[in-house]
Amino acid sequence: MPVPKKQKNVYADAEQMAEKQRTISVSEFFSKNRHLLGFDNPRRALLTAVKEAVDNSLDACEEAGILPDLTVTLKELSEDRFSMSVEDNGPGIVKNQIPNIFAKLLYGSKFHSMKMSRGQQGIGISAAGMYGQLTTGQPIKITSKIGKGKPAHHYHLHLNTTQNKPEILRDIEMDWPKDHGTLVEIELEGRYQKGRSSVDEYVRQTAIANPHVSITYTLQLLTGEEKAEYIRSVKQLPLPPKEIKPHPYGVELGMLMKMLKTTNSRALKGALQSDFSRVSSKVAGEICAAANLNPNASPKAIALKEADNLFRAIQKVKIMNPPTDCISPIGEDLIVSGLKQQVEAEIFVATTRPPSVYRGNPFQIEAGIAYGGKLPGDELAQVFRFANRVPLLYQQSACAIFKTVQGIDWKNYGLDQARGALPSGPLVIMVHMASVWVPFTSESKEAIASYDEVIKEMRLALQECGRKISAHISHKRRVADALQKINYIQTYIPQIGIALKDILGLNEKEVKRAVTTLTEVLEKKRAI
Amino acid sequence: MPVPKKQKNVYADAEQMAEKQRTISVSEFFSKNRHLLGFDNPRRALLTAVKEAVDNSLDACEEAGILPDLTVTLKELSEDRFSMSVEDNGPGIVKNQIPNIFAKLLYGSKFHSMKMSRGQQGIGISAAGMYGQLTTGQPIKITSKIGKGKPAHHYHLHLNTTQNKPEILRDIEMDWPKDHGTLVEIELEGRYQKGRSSVDEYVRQTAIANPHVSITYTLQLLTGEEKAEYIRSVKQLPLPPKEIKPHPYGVELGMLMKMLKTTNSRALKGALQSDFSRVSSKVAGEICAAANLNPNASPKAIALKEADNLFRAIQKVKIMNPPTDCISPIGEDLIVSGLKQQVEAEIFVATTRPPSVYRGNPFQIEAGIAYGGKLPGDELAQVFRFANRVPLLYQQSACAIFKTVQGIDWKNYGLDQARGALPSGPLVIMVHMASVWVPFTSESKEAIASYDEVIKEMRLALQECGRKISAHISHKRRVADALQKINYIQTYIPQIGIALKDILGLNEKEVKRAVTTLTEVLEKKRAI
Repeated sequence: MPVPKKQKNVYADAEQMAEKQRTISVSEFFSKNRHLLGFDNPRRALLTAVKEAVDNSLDACEEAGILPDLTVTLKELSEDRFSMSVEDNGPGIVKNQIPNIFAKLLYGSKFHSMKMSRGQQGIGISAAGMYGQLTTGQPIKITSKIGKGKPAHHYHLHLNTTQNKPEILRDIEMDWPKDHGTLVEIELEGRYQKGRSSVDEYVRQTAIANPHVSITYTLQLLTGEEKAEYIRSVKQLPLPPKEIKPHPYGVELGMLMKMLKTTNSRALKGALQSDFSRVSSKVAGEICAAANLNPNASPKAIALKEADNLFRAIQKVKIMNPPTDCISPIGEDLIVSGLKQQVEAEIFVATTRPPSVYRGNPFQIEAGIAYGGKLPGDELAQVFRFANRVPLLYQQSACAIFKTVQGIDWKNYGLDQARGALPSGPLVIMVHMASVWVPFTSESKEAIASYDEVIKEMRLALQECGRKISAHISHKRRVADALQKINYIQTYIPQIGIALKDILGLNEKEVKRAVTTLTEVLEKKRAI
Repeated sequence: MPVPKKQKNVYADAEQMAEKQRTISVSEFFSKNRHLLGFDNPRRALLTAVKEAVDNSLDACEEAGILPDLTVTLKELSEDRFSMSVEDNGPGIVKNQIPNIFAKLLYGSKFHSMKMSRGQQGIGISAAGMYGQLTTGQPIKITSKIGKGKPAHHYHLHLNTTQNKPEILRDIEMDWPKDHGTLVEIELEGRYQKGRSSVDEYVRQTAIANPHVSITYTLQLLTGEEKAEYIRSVKQLPLPPKEIKPHPYGVELGMLMKMLKTTNSRALKGALQSDFSRVSSKVAGEICAAANLNPNASPKAIALKEADNLFRAIQKVKIMNPPTDCISPIGEDLIVSGLKQQVEAEIFVATTRPPSVYRGNPFQIEAGIAYGGKLPGDELAQVFRFANRVPLLYQQSACAIFKTVQGIDWKNYGLDQARGALPSGPLVIMVHMASVWVPFTSESKEAIASYDEVIKEMRLALQECGRKISAHISHKRRVADALQKINYIQTYIPQIGIALKDILGLNEKEVKRAVTTLTEVLEKKRAI
């Protein structure tokens, strides 16, 4: 491989390359790739920070059985700089957990549990704090209290990105005039702008999908203050979702081997029964038989070849779908009433599909459509996307919801649609995916990945909604088409009259008669 | 907050929640979120694994000054199971680095260097191995040799996902009949399917953007074998990109503070000069003066308030753009010749924009358009996307390239375009972003994030290409329109004749005359 001599010094050999190899900390990785977490520009960063804090507050309140009262405040400090705070009436956080929860990436309680919740990665709020620190140098400030008579703890935290560890700048006890709750304050580079991806819209859509939540939202701009109050319309918490075990159909060979190595059961059959969802003694026996393995074999002694047999046997044995009480959908009635409160349309429909399963994860799709009324008639449909009751405002075109909406032939339901585009018309389309594990396309959790099973359910839900509104739409459409045809005829007939006059030498009266009769004939032929 | 008594036991308090908090390993995170890395279905997984191995091979060859000869082989072992291998003639890998490079996430040489390369995260190839392990239980197999007379090392590696550490299953020396190079073999769940997102297409597009590479591609399916040879058309390596230091405009406050704390310089002014790109003694002095700081102050003693002043001062001082020899574009001629080799069109144009900067990172946009010829005329345009010469085949709609193509008003250049859609017609559009740090929307590196500066350059490049082809297109279009109008007239005129016969009682001869004259009149009025 001859290399020109004078160039040789710019190239490296294997030894030189080896010297440059090193470990990258997860915080360094995400601070360089902060767009992955939703912090790629000041406007989106402001929204993401609010969203992460609100997600955590709502999850904590619901887990503790508390109807959430939230106070969200954005304060513009100077151009491009905001302080944001989210205060809740949740259960509070135990003192020694505060630093790790708010200033260490990949730390949390939800990652290893199979249960529907808004947060799942153990990244969000620490990433928001890290972004604030990167852009303003300011620490994230936490105040939390876990019960009446207990002190509130107030922390200022930095995240050491080289080591992914919290640095405690301040740690004091203080009085706080509430029984329990948590207040998160972050100073960050941010920009406020009204519109579809604004914090206003996020709070509004959160209220649509969470009718049991009250939110006081204050926006203090340099130019003035705005305030919005969202009062809960339902005084009951959603049914608390239950935690489940992994379903055998969703476990891959590698994970199966890991589970067998770390099980507490001494026998293979017992391990299958105790560590998986929906594996009865009978099913466990059938799996062992299909895999040609001894039910009493030690799970830790299962070798690759045997594990592979076991894996294939699982796919062949009929196993019940996972339990679905781990999911808590919004419900058709609450979707319709939520949409009615926020969208001025003529007709509202909703569908909640039965639960389904992708990769062993139970999930459930709901859809709603609002049509007509004061919605603008000549624009593309507006799509509201929700995952576990959280509005998704960015990365629309990367989302399975958006792609499914685009992929449906809406002309079947009487709507206009250009090839490769959303339907157009006075239309709001809402889709909600509830799951123990929503497959997001990135950590910023703004778009749902396109799993076949998920897309199929979305499609079915949307088609059901489509059928529900199509009668209404096709009536409206027939009326509109008729008007258009009449316009068309009225526009062109006189021209033909003029042409006839020239060609056949008709006089004015004859032309008039011809035009009138022609109009009548054509109208009759194209009768509505 | 009264909670119904009988429900109380399903809820948790702060203490119970604290018990469930724990650290999540980065491998656990990515194994659960493998769709983030491009492994969400067997078809895409096969492509991603090939892509990660090819990226590494090409980077290593170019860094060592070697014209790359690659052998890519896919072998179908059974339904949904493949073995893939990529062999290169690169510099090889030093023995003790092999385990970490191939079986530890976030380990690599490129993350901390500001230099254009295909890989950048230190995740890809280890993730491919981890996916193989998860789905088949098989280790990743590596053979590597760093020079003539040295032994080749052969490894079998597992990745311990709980600790993100390599586990060495086999480590032997062996004979290998080549001087230097690396062979990576992975057995994985995969599926092969022809089409736009296939490995075939990936290899084909790689050849378009890398005319200096030769690739032997073999596909051994259960149904038969296919082979494709891509021979290099250029015998020269691209100019080796240089490593640069961060540019002051792209450094955020938090990063600035970190750099000041860890600099080797004793004086502020010296630190600015030595650790940043384009900061001369004069510029460093201006920055210190604008920040009202002593140029001889110790950088480690700079407090938050002072760092903030420094940060603001940097934005005010005029600093040259970063050097752009760290980027190596393909070039207009090679884009056109690359497209010509792979696309059967009538006209080819290309544009290489001058380098620009986003967040302190130099980047350069190139675009090309192929139009007409044998391309299908009634479909949406095909968009070829490249980042640092790597074809991007998935997540098209999430990509800044796709969005920019969609957002341009192609009607200005004589093309058809439905609202919110791609232009349609016999059209291939290619865009290449070259940068020291491509801002991908996710670790699977398939879509470019929408930074304003990047989008602006893409838009300009595409508009330049649009202007270059518009004359050609509008001529073709006028001809097509004329034909359509004639068809239209030919269709409707006879109907009018029949209507006239009924209305005015004309005889056949008169009808024929009317129709003929009407046709002539209308054709004259709508003359082309």
